[in-house]
Amino acid sequence: MGFESVIKLAASETDNLWSSGHGSVVAITLFVTLLCTCIVIGHLLEENRWMNESIIALIIGLATGVIILLISGGKSSHLLVFSEDLFFIYALPPIIFNAGFQVKKKSFFRNFATIMMFGAVGTLISFIIISLGTIAFFPKMNMRLGVGDYLAIGAIFAATDSVCTLQVLSQDETPLLYSLVFGEGVVNDATSVVLFNAVQNFDLPHMSTAKAFELVGNFFYLFATSTVLGVLTGLLSAYIIKKLYFGRHSTDREVAIMILMAYLSYMLAELFDLSGILTVFFCGIVMSHYTWHNVTENSRVTTKHTFATLSFVAEIFIFLYVGMDALDIEKWRFVSGSMTTSAAVSATLLGLVLLSRAAFVFPLSFLSNLAKKSPLEKISLRQQIIIWWAGLMRGAVSMALAYKQFTREGLTVERENAIFITSTITIVLFSTVVFGLMTKPLINLLIPSPKLNRSVSSEPLTPNSITIPLLGESQDSVAELFSIRGQTSQGGEPVARPSSLRMLLTKPTHTVHYYWRKFDNAFMRPVFGGRGFVPYVPGSPTERSVRNWEEETKQ
Amino acid sequence: MGFESVIKLAASETDNLWSSGHGSVVAITLFVTLLCTCIVIGHLLEENRWMNESIIALIIGLATGVIILLISGGKSSHLLVFSEDLFFIYALPPIIFNAGFQVKKKSFFRNFATIMMFGAVGTLISFIIISLGTIAFFPKMNMRLGVGDYLAIGAIFAATDSVCTLQVLSQDETPLLYSLVFGEGVVNDATSVVLFNAVQNFDLPHMSTAKAFELVGNFFYLFATSTVLGVLTGLLSAYIIKKLYFGRHSTDREVAIMILMAYLSYMLAELFDLSGILTVFFCGIVMSHYTWHNVTENSRVTTKHTFATLSFVAEIFIFLYVGMDALDIEKWRFVSGSMTTSAAVSATLLGLVLLSRAAFVFPLSFLSNLAKKSPLEKISLRQQIIIWWAGLMRGAVSMALAYKQFTREGLTVERENAIFITSTITIVLFSTVVFGLMTKPLINLLIPSPKLNRSVSSEPLTPNSITIPLLGESQDSVAELFSIRGQTSQGGEPVARPSSLRMLLTKPTHTVHYYWRKFDNAFMRPVFGGRGFVPYVPGSPTERSVRNWEEETKQ
Repeated sequence: MGFESVIKLAASETDNLWSSGHGSVVAITLFVTLLCTCIVIGHLLEENRWMNESIIALIIGLATGVIILLISGGKSSHLLVFSEDLFFIYALPPIIFNAGFQVKKKSFFRNFATIMMFGAVGTLISFIIISLGTIAFFPKMNMRLGVGDYLAIGAIFAATDSVCTLQVLSQDETPLLYSLVFGEGVVNDATSVVLFNAVQNFDLPHMSTAKAFELVGNFFYLFATSTVLGVLTGLLSAYIIKKLYFGRHSTDREVAIMILMAYLSYMLAELFDLSGILTVFFCGIVMSHYTWHNVTENSRVTTKHTFATLSFVAEIFIFLYVGMDALDIEKWRFVSGSMTTSAAVSATLLGLVLLSRAAFVFPLSFLSNLAKKSPLEKISLRQQIIIWWAGLMRGAVSMALAYKQFTREGLTVERENAIFITSTITIVLFSTVVFGLMTKPLINLLIPSPKLNRSVSSEPLTPNSITIPLLGESQDSVAELFSIRGQTSQGGEPVARPSSLRMLLTKPTHTVHYYWRKFDNAFMRPVFGGRGFVPYVPGSPTERSVRNWEEETKQ
Repeated sequence: MGFESVIKLAASETDNLWSSGHGSVVAITLFVTLLCTCIVIGHLLEENRWMNESIIALIIGLATGVIILLISGGKSSHLLVFSEDLFFIYALPPIIFNAGFQVKKKSFFRNFATIMMFGAVGTLISFIIISLGTIAFFPKMNMRLGVGDYLAIGAIFAATDSVCTLQVLSQDETPLLYSLVFGEGVVNDATSVVLFNAVQNFDLPHMSTAKAFELVGNFFYLFATSTVLGVLTGLLSAYIIKKLYFGRHSTDREVAIMILMAYLSYMLAELFDLSGILTVFFCGIVMSHYTWHNVTENSRVTTKHTFATLSFVAEIFIFLYVGMDALDIEKWRFVSGSMTTSAAVSATLLGLVLLSRAAFVFPLSFLSNLAKKSPLEKISLRQQIIIWWAGLMRGAVSMALAYKQFTREGLTVERENAIFITSTITIVLFSTVVFGLMTKPLINLLIPSPKLNRSVSSEPLTPNSITIPLLGESQDSVAELFSIRGQTSQGGEPVARPSSLRMLLTKPTHTVHYYWRKFDNAFMRPVFGGRGFVPYVPGSPTERSVRNWEEETKQ
């Protein structure tokens, strides 16, 4: 990760070299210590339903910021300055990749239409309402910004923070809600990129229908190219590992190739100005569907837990970092003269976030429900409330974008910009802590019993649940595969079962899945590997019995 | 890892921000792609006995440097400039930690006296010879440097590169040679730190016996404190995981704590100006002896392979980086006027490296042999030749130290310094490629058959080998533990076996091991965990049958 600093060294060779001495060692030591502390405290407080690791990290970060502030005599909490690079290049990719790697693919793709609607149309609605709201209210508070800035604020606060969603919604307890809100968080990244780029060279007087269509076209182009890039990188990794058969010699090579190629997909997307989040998410899905099945059992255990651990540490790191950065004393001092304005701006933005999300969640859920016939597949009002609530959090992505738009090299020059930055920090802290703390209790209140909870999930206890084993056979999450690993070596051709025809007749909406499975088994898996299509890989402890059995039958 | 750049941002806020844009993305993408390429090619060429991944990485790095040079029209190969930080803070710790984690502890501690002699006395002898040699020869070549610089050259080239050693010697094939040469590489890091610090404020006229003793005292102080720090951090990690029983909920937490605390030990050592290499090496040993046994089966598989993979990638990265940096056109241009001098300097240094290593390997091996009674435990002349040869390589550590001493912020100002830097690059490339390529064939030539090979290893097929199972019970490497994992849950009190008394009577030299085992079982393991002293951890696939059996017996 230090490349950056190396390049910086090359770029500005008159650079201040304070960093290469004691300073960076102190900062890294402190950060690693804090990360360990967060993990230990998080473990001790795990039984507590209200807390989660991100809130603990935020609080510890804030406390550390206070201590640094006191030690430096109130001069600075500037041990670190928020860096978008650090966030976008290093901390975000492992989180999103792991989400794609562990996502329940069945649940995700079944709700794909709704997710796309929320992520694209919903974010656009949210963007328009927040932009119009700030244009209407901000001038009254003596906050005068350019039109571009108002639109940027809309883009910054329109998007749900997918990292926060991962923390408050549980994939196992509320799979439908998880896939809807998290899926929306992934898709709205593409929307944000398009909106942000459009806002940069926005030309209101010349706005026309053609331009609007161009924006829509841009979104679909970006969505398609990012997805294709992620899928191709994932398939390439599967092909390389299958053809070269890394398991022959080295688990470490397989693990290294998987980690490096996952990261490569994100960096390639960034290089081509695509949405890295979308790319690495789909790369994760493809890797868990193909590549993961081509490696040794040890590699599977290792990659599963390594990706989860990296994601876990990156999440804690982000919240710790946001917590520490919140006390950026210079910006607060800037603002101290206009505390009322700052508070009013924060409250207005918070209100707009609440309103704009309500303005698309309920109407779009209504539309989505129209398309569904079974009442059990529909999104109930209680679920809609949770979707609205769980997507209210704004996190490090908002903060990174705010810094990008309203600071120059980490410094705020104008009063308006400083107020906006401190308001962003306020909203991020408030929404993460307050909304975050209240999400779990809210879910318990609205969907109380675990039994009811399951019945409204994406795996309903309805007659159609008989089709689940068929569809789910290879679309399950890695976590599920893991628990039923014993079946791994048995994977055959589930589409050949007699029930498939009946399914096709009774559930035509699921035929996409059916044809995909057919295509997957006929063309994709023979080339790229996957469950049941890879020869036995030696060195797998749980499959040792299988091998012994095979060897015995040969003799 | 990007903290550094963040701090840099804070430190020099007028910084050139080229790096935070496209530049770093391009560099990272290129590097990740090259890493993947090296891994794939390394796998394809694995059958080739002459090649190894480091040489492939060096060659690919050089080729990439040439391409960048051509693209930039001969102006610069400066995509990256060699950064000591990048090397010492990020790439080196995982390599050394993994070496400690996977080292065969039995073999390492049995040869501890010899390793210490090679690492401390040997490095000092080497340092003196190289320093005197440069003082004698360099002025004749019109290279005029200060006394401090001559001594620095001695310190830079006296130390064996432990990273290279890991690549050319195999722990499984030649365990004695591996533990001697690699152990020397770890210990001589402490020597290097002491010598380097002593050289910085060296005062030749006032050199006295008292000063010399001070140096020796410094070495032992540094060695002891670094080791203790590593051991304490390792024990703390074992204690935390044992007490909090992370396995109850999360494999990811255990893995994260192990990785973070391993890294923390290195950073703490750097913070206190100790030898991070020694600290993290001993932390690895302690973690593999205690912590690793306290975690779930999945965590064991994950940590074992994650550490190995990180180390593997870091090694390739270093060689790739050294290869790319070798074409630093500015320094070569500086030197182009005095090609003859440069060649002479390189040749002289290479000769001194060969000579100075011979000057301590053979005499010290003779001394070591005097202390051993069994002819099979002695280091044969053939083995001495391999020890001499395998330790000749100079790698990234030498390069990083040379840059530290002879450049100011990545730039060379004087002609002498530029010549010295290019000579260092030449020696690193030459010794890694030529000596590295020839080590495996040399071993095959001198110790031809695998059978003989094994008989001269640290586990000789002699009458005393009956004591091995006793001593080896818990001192084995992680790799060995892995292959006999089935015994993990059975581990009892091996010292209680009747053969232990006989061993004590027949082999008094091994009583240190015996008392250590006794102490370990009586005091250390009950507190810090370890094999056989940890309650059953659920979620372990291979132990599932054990649990089922236990549950059945309960019913």
